[in-house]
Amino acid sequence: MTDSTRRDFLQTSVAASLLAATSVSAAAAAANDKPATRFVSDHQHTPVPLPFDPQALNGISEKLVQSHWANNYIGSVNALNSVRGKLTQALSDASTPAYLYNGLKREQLLRTGSVILHELYFSNLGGSGRADAELRSKIANSFGSFDVWETEFRKIGQGLGGGSGWVVLGYNRTLRLLENYWMADHGTAPIDTTPLLVMDMYEHAYQMDYGAAAAKYIDTFLANVQWEAVAKRL
Amino acid sequence: MTDSTRRDFLQTSVAASLLAATSVSAAAAAANDKPATRFVSDHQHTPVPLPFDPQALNGISEKLVQSHWANNYIGSVNALNSVRGKLTQALSDASTPAYLYNGLKREQLLRTGSVILHELYFSNLGGSGRADAELRSKIANSFGSFDVWETEFRKIGQGLGGGSGWVVLGYNRTLRLLENYWMADHGTAPIDTTPLLVMDMYEHAYQMDYGAAAAKYIDTFLANVQWEAVAKRL
Amino acid sequence: MTDSTRRDFLQTSVAASLLAATSVSAAAAAANDKPATRFVSDHQHTPVPLPFDPQALNGISEKLVQSHWANNYIGSVNALNSVRGKLTQALSDASTPAYLYNGLKREQLLRTGSVILHELYFSNLGGSGRADAELRSKIANSFGSFDVWETEFRKIGQGLGGGSGWVVLGYNRTLRLLENYWMADHGTAPIDTTPLLVMDMYEHAYQMDYGAAAAKYIDTFLANVQWEAVAKRL
Amino acid sequence: MTDSTRRDFLQTSVAASLLAATSVSAAAAAANDKPATRFVSDHQHTPVPLPFDPQALNGISEKLVQSHWANNYIGSVNALNSVRGKLTQALSDASTPAYLYNGLKREQLLRTGSVILHELYFSNLGGSGRADAELRSKIANSFGSFDVWETEFRKIGQGLGGGSGWVVLGYNRTLRLLENYWMADHGTAPIDTTPLLVMDMYEHAYQMDYGAAAAKYIDTFLANVQWEAVAKRL
Repeated sequence: MTDSTRRDFLQTSVAASLLAATSVSAAAAAANDKPATRFVSDHQHTPVPLPFDPQALNGISEKLVQSHWANNYIGSVNALNSVRGKLTQALSDASTPAYLYNGLKREQLLRTGSVILHELYFSNLGGSGRADAELRSKIANSFGSFDVWETEFRKIGQGLGGGSGWVVLGYNRTLRLLENYWMADHGTAPIDTTPLLVMDMYEHAYQMDYGAAAAKYIDTFLANVQWEAVAKRL
Repeated sequence: MTDSTRRDFLQTSVAASLLAATSVSAAAAAANDKPATRFVSDHQHTPVPLPFDPQALNGISEKLVQSHWANNYIGSVNALNSVRGKLTQALSDASTPAYLYNGLKREQLLRTGSVILHELYFSNLGGSGRADAELRSKIANSFGSFDVWETEFRKIGQGLGGGSGWVVLGYNRTLRLLENYWMADHGTAPIDTTPLLVMDMYEHAYQMDYGAAAAKYIDTFLANVQWEAVAKRL
Repeated sequence: MTDSTRRDFLQTSVAASLLAATSVSAAAAAANDKPATRFVSDHQHTPVPLPFDPQALNGISEKLVQSHWANNYIGSVNALNSVRGKLTQALSDASTPAYLYNGLKREQLLRTGSVILHELYFSNLGGSGRADAELRSKIANSFGSFDVWETEFRKIGQGLGGGSGWVVLGYNRTLRLLENYWMADHGTAPIDTTPLLVMDMYEHAYQMDYGAAAAKYIDTFLANVQWEAVAKRL
Repeated sequence: MTDSTRRDFLQTSVAASLLAATSVSAAAAAANDKPATRFVSDHQHTPVPLPFDPQALNGISEKLVQSHWANNYIGSVNALNSVRGKLTQALSDASTPAYLYNGLKREQLLRTGSVILHELYFSNLGGSGRADAELRSKIANSFGSFDVWETEFRKIGQGLGGGSGWVVLGYNRTLRLLENYWMADHGTAPIDTTPLLVMDMYEHAYQMDYGAAAAKYIDTFLANVQWEAVAKRL
């Protein structure tokens, strides 16, 4: 086959494969919660409940936490699940322009980021805000001191005040370093990095309780960190 | 300490910590290539040589490969190393506005992405373009069939033609799925994902040889994939 | 001169020109509020007061409006003025890497957008929400009907809920069309376009009063539009 | 009507209006090249031919110019025209999720930027590279000197080397200043600004002739500027 006939052939066979995959996946799903074989675009993400009592955070209101979970997180889960269906449809139609297909892939990337980051965010809240000596020492090893780490983490957060974004302490697997990352939105991220501590700086994470006072929210966030969850991720 | 005196204290102690860390790191570096204790902003990335004979790619010229490595990749290594120094300086000065600090963090993120993605790209080139049965089967498990995977991978690439970006087949560690990702630039990425196969769609990856014919470049890229490297990453 | 000696010469003469320009500009500024000759990087933007009584909006609280003006708008004015100084400094030093210079130019672009869009936003609020027949007819001419325009304007706003962005009805001067534009942040914008009606969809524009209910905020925004201001811009 | 019944009503009437608008527009188009009444989503952009002899540029090859015009510019015209049709369809279906609608609006914004910027770029090429005294003096008035302007314009361009973007000298209508702007892609732009001189820094503007040598391309671009066109825009 030449390359271009190969491309035609590929495209022709995709619709059939997608249909077959969908049926296999549906059958598998009926038999088993996590089937080994499934078509990625059919994957439906199941929302994770809040891992702590929303009344229990010190300085973040139950109302804000509930709204954050029910609107921003669940909204992204629903959008992600819906986008997967649109991707399946769009890929099976060879006439879909590639740039429109990428509009859907962009939405998938943003929603995947939103879903995962929100799950990490909620599950690194609900703690005492005190990291144990071992973790502090590991962080100090990468940053010179725990205080340098904290100063940078706060500064990135303050710079994101008034807009969207995330601050992530991550373990970069290629560089083998703990680093803080600035992220402008759900789709900005360091490649090949395990997220350890995740702070939401979208305004929906604090405006309802703190208005524009992002620095106060950062204080509150750090005072509620569940460092045990962070240690497990590392 | 109140939160705000704590912040003042933190900031005051950072300059000292940074200086100390720098000396420790310098001393450590003198004794040892990979010291256990180092300040992250001091980390200097060492460029990785081209892992294949640049004359040996089938359909990508030596001239393009050499320029890609020497200008785009090495340019990013140098910029990343230089930005780290600027970050150390800027963090030790409490008067640096947070939004200007984040300008440097954005550059760090972009250059980190560029460095890592280019290293993955070069090291997944130089092969036969044929994945073995085991890997094809793993990919088919996630996508329904290997052809569906290839069709989507190509389509994302075509949609990025004429601009910047990357296509990445990655293993999303949270979702436990193999997925293809659209990335608009070095700083767009899926969170918590191990990159497996990386295709550069910046125009410097093909314009010199293929002009605007991005689809032909994608054919050529796929024909030169070193699938053994991809399998090792998974 | 060869091109490269010309570049050297240019760079050498820039520091002198910048200094001279600064003095000229300072002298001019002493004599005249809006001097004909000034160096662009010295331009200091003067904040515009709220053009309406912040207690008078129907459904947006005085507290939110005051915070929006005093924190988000004034914050951007201050940042823009400060960035200009940094640009002057950075340009006069030939050793500034171009990618770091562009970090400042990006900040200038974002802050310029924030300042101008906020001024337009505040000055198209405080009205009755009713456009007169002439304006409705002009909008209907471009969109098929006024209702089509409103439906699209609302839909773009709803899609921006939960993040950052703006919706702008603008007159595209090249295309000679009235169009609604989606903008993801202060720096996303249609080129060569006169903004007519500007709606802030950053969460600080509504979270304090409406939580995550972006659609209700859009209702309220439209009910408070000062259409006379919009008509004047057209 | 309550706000929510009003929204329902609006949505119901949109499909009808869109259909009517399409017929009116078609009828108008039959009678007149530039009808006063048309539906904005039906607007089909007519490509502008290259305004100069593609063999005549000094240092940019005919092959590159032809490819740039035929692939990158015409590709965007076609995509823009196609996206308008998709927008009309998507808006008339009330069940279209707002975030998917915005995926199309984003593409419209990017393609609108690409079309307009490319037209400005081509029409400010083909000249002698020498601005007359009056224009140089106007630029010097804003920048301190013509050399400061040129130094900044070049520096922004160099910082964009190896990726995507535009450099634009524009007249900001709100600030009443001539300023140089950094643009990361077709959809990054200063609001309320008349573009005067436009330099394409996407790699397709130079890779074919200059490889990674962006600075040489900038020299060539400036030597070919049609300053008379720039003066007319101001």
